[in-house]
Amino acid sequence: MRRAACRVPSSSANLGPGYDVFSVALADPALEVQVELTDSTTNVEVEPLGRYGDRVNRNPERNSAARAFVELRRRLGADLGAKIRILANIPVGKGLGSSAAEAVGAVLSASRALGVELERVEVVRLAASVEPGGHADNAAAAALGGFNVILQEESETTFLNFRAPEDLGLVVLVPDIEKGSTELARAYVPKQVTMAEHVEVASRVAAACASMLSGDLRTLLRAISIDPIVERSRADGGVYGNYTWNELREEKLRLLKSYGVALTISGAGPSRLLLYDRSFGCRGEEGERPIDLAVNEVIASFERRGHRVLEVYWTRPDNFGAVQTS
Amino acid sequence: MRRAACRVPSSSANLGPGYDVFSVALADPALEVQVELTDSTTNVEVEPLGRYGDRVNRNPERNSAARAFVELRRRLGADLGAKIRILANIPVGKGLGSSAAEAVGAVLSASRALGVELERVEVVRLAASVEPGGHADNAAAAALGGFNVILQEESETTFLNFRAPEDLGLVVLVPDIEKGSTELARAYVPKQVTMAEHVEVASRVAAACASMLSGDLRTLLRAISIDPIVERSRADGGVYGNYTWNELREEKLRLLKSYGVALTISGAGPSRLLLYDRSFGCRGEEGERPIDLAVNEVIASFERRGHRVLEVYWTRPDNFGAVQTS
Repeated sequence: MRRAACRVPSSSANLGPGYDVFSVALADPALEVQVELTDSTTNVEVEPLGRYGDRVNRNPERNSAARAFVELRRRLGADLGAKIRILANIPVGKGLGSSAAEAVGAVLSASRALGVELERVEVVRLAASVEPGGHADNAAAAALGGFNVILQEESETTFLNFRAPEDLGLVVLVPDIEKGSTELARAYVPKQVTMAEHVEVASRVAAACASMLSGDLRTLLRAISIDPIVERSRADGGVYGNYTWNELREEKLRLLKSYGVALTISGAGPSRLLLYDRSFGCRGEEGERPIDLAVNEVIASFERRGHRVLEVYWTRPDNFGAVQTS
Repeated sequence: MRRAACRVPSSSANLGPGYDVFSVALADPALEVQVELTDSTTNVEVEPLGRYGDRVNRNPERNSAARAFVELRRRLGADLGAKIRILANIPVGKGLGSSAAEAVGAVLSASRALGVELERVEVVRLAASVEPGGHADNAAAAALGGFNVILQEESETTFLNFRAPEDLGLVVLVPDIEKGSTELARAYVPKQVTMAEHVEVASRVAAACASMLSGDLRTLLRAISIDPIVERSRADGGVYGNYTWNELREEKLRLLKSYGVALTISGAGPSRLLLYDRSFGCRGEEGERPIDLAVNEVIASFERRGHRVLEVYWTRPDNFGAVQTS
């Protein structure tokens, strides 16, 4: 029996202004994918387990892990079936890269079970090819870990992978808002932007990238906290819940000013990613840390608008990416 | 008699896609500014010398060094005149930051002559305040040296300063093309860009920034070699000479592919900045290096279109910025 399993981290794409450019892998939550190859049949069977197993599509044609397996099988010309068990512990449809993590897990586990050594970049490309729009941001973070920059040239896409700073603290808040699909959320992305918006976002993206690499968290948090293009337009489209952009923007500016915390939307939302400096506020002050106060404020703000927070993950960047577990 | 002088490097803004975001200081060419304070009068007198002295405006109201001096005087509340000598060895009106260098040199020399210690960031702000549109890219490079990222937030502008990689080789080609003024060149910057253009440029800017900091020259040169927004639209506006964007783009792609050389327009042009890896092609190959062939091709391409190259500077990043010389 040929079988292998991987643990794959969740991920947060965009980081504010870096729409389709940035992603970061999160140490928690994570999912696990086990692939058991079957020679007797070409059937692909999906068995979702775990906390969010009931939200995972069992239909192999609509399940990311199964689609990634089929694509790998096609490229290798292998005539095999598989039983794919998914320990689905990443919230589904919440902007945390669960489908990319499934796809990465399936490709890695299946290739290990087959004894095929794939380059990590190939794992990313394969997993991204079954993602909506072929976007590689979440897949890169799931497979490679750390902080990722996607370079889009006409002729090809390149993934640049870097360690995220050790002191970068992350909190994920998952609200009960249903955004529909990522494709629906893409409908709210504007077709045109003004030159001033473009320059502001390009300058924020550059500053975010530079400060992520140099470990300058203060500049990083400032640079990513506002996105006047995609977050603005999706907020006003209602994708993030009962918030106008002006309300969301004021919340962001207040959290940054009062607590040194950056609030971004994780991927297409609705989850919120709060970023902070873990070395800040841990030096023996009495009472609650700034990040605790910030999290409480965001939860209260959701509740005032009729939303409920389903999960809070206190986490940090995962600098390893997917790892084989058996 | 109170007198001081500074040597200030030239600089190249934008680096392809990083319009209003990136700049790099060039070790050569450079200019020198000497300020001699006079208590007896509030007259400001400009004496341009050096290779391009005849291109420098002597009228204190239109000369960058004089305007920067007057602005510094106003802020300090000092009742002084000055004689400003400019050793103008940076080509004027060619996209090499000569006016920003003059302004930085005047502020630094005057403050030293006055015995006032200004923070470098204040020098940049002051010099930028007399630049067209208040843009700080060239001023930051002139004052701080190295590679600079301008973070533009609604409320403030921040300058992030980094060392440029040691192996980054630079060649500046100055053609006889007259672009008119930088303001005129700004008229060709589009008011709107498509989302696809925006995302491509944001991803190029992020990748350029990351690879500049990590020293990955291969990715850097690829990321900066194409700018589908500003360079495209200025090329088609004729700002860079008798080149359509398609012709310029093909030249860029050919130089990158054949010689590993990135061709960008320096600032608003018309000078070309060629970037290459100095460790590449220096390992005992016979004959000309790839960068030599690339420079020859660019010169031949200018000549085919009826332009002439006036100057070629073989240089590298200046990681120091303005320095006091007396």
